[in-house]
Amino acid sequence: MLTRIDHIGIACFDLDKTIEFYRETYGFEVLHIEANEEQGLREAMLRINGTSDGGMSCLQLLESTREDSVVGKWLAKNGEGVHHIAFGTADVDGDADAIRDKGIRVLYDEPRIGSMGSRITFLHPKDCHGVLTELVTAAPSDRAGH
Amino acid sequence: MLTRIDHIGIACFDLDKTIEFYRETYGFEVLHIEANEEQGLREAMLRINGTSDGGMSCLQLLESTREDSVVGKWLAKNGEGVHHIAFGTADVDGDADAIRDKGIRVLYDEPRIGSMGSRITFLHPKDCHGVLTELVTAAPSDRAGH
Repeated sequence: MLTRIDHIGIACFDLDKTIEFYRETYGFEVLHIEANEEQGLREAMLRINGTSDGGMSCLQLLESTREDSVVGKWLAKNGEGVHHIAFGTADVDGDADAIRDKGIRVLYDEPRIGSMGSRITFLHPKDCHGVLTELVTAAPSDRAGH
Repeated sequence: MLTRIDHIGIACFDLDKTIEFYRETYGFEVLHIEANEEQGLREAMLRINGTSDGGMSCLQLLESTREDSVVGKWLAKNGEGVHHIAFGTADVDGDADAIRDKGIRVLYDEPRIGSMGSRITFLHPKDCHGVLTELVTAAPSDRAGH
């Protein structure tokens, strides 16, 4: 069961400048930064608010570190902007299976490790009215910290 | 001060079909539907979760009712997808003024009435790393209800 907006994923050309924009303009602070060599990404999580399921909602800023990365190709086509939205759930495996059974294409056979030790999968945007949609289960230690 | 992700605005070709997609796929229910003749819009709010500031986070589904509406033109260019993001604040007037003073273009001179009696304004996407960004203060009676 999806119980929160976990984050909004925003692709940007320069992560440091974009972090600075969100800090200067709104006062949002960085919770976490990490690089994902495999995906050719560097990303920052900015915590915006806590949620009624005991989690939180964030902005996730995504910078491509390789032209041929998924986000790099997306940026070359679209420019900066909202890349995906993510819903939080306690059970990404069960929810992904249930959604697959409804005929929606789930992009990974099994959930993979996402940022901050979460487990994630994605739904095909063409099956979701144009919205690349992520499902996230936060890491246990991470959830406990909220 | 912006204290929550208020909603994610998603443009769609057919509001009823898109509502049905979100209900069938995830179990999200409609909180509110309204038409805005002036803006050439029909919209639905789907409540996803409560937030730590006493508000809530929603998906806002937007259908154009006129080809020449802002959302209609956007859909013709981009197809379905995420149209804007909105942050909630107790003081949209003060926050809009403070953000304008930082050199970000605020699209309305004064906040206007948005859905569910809220007061809203928008920031120029070119000043926000490609993201059309809305600021929202919920109607008092609406906030009390959460």
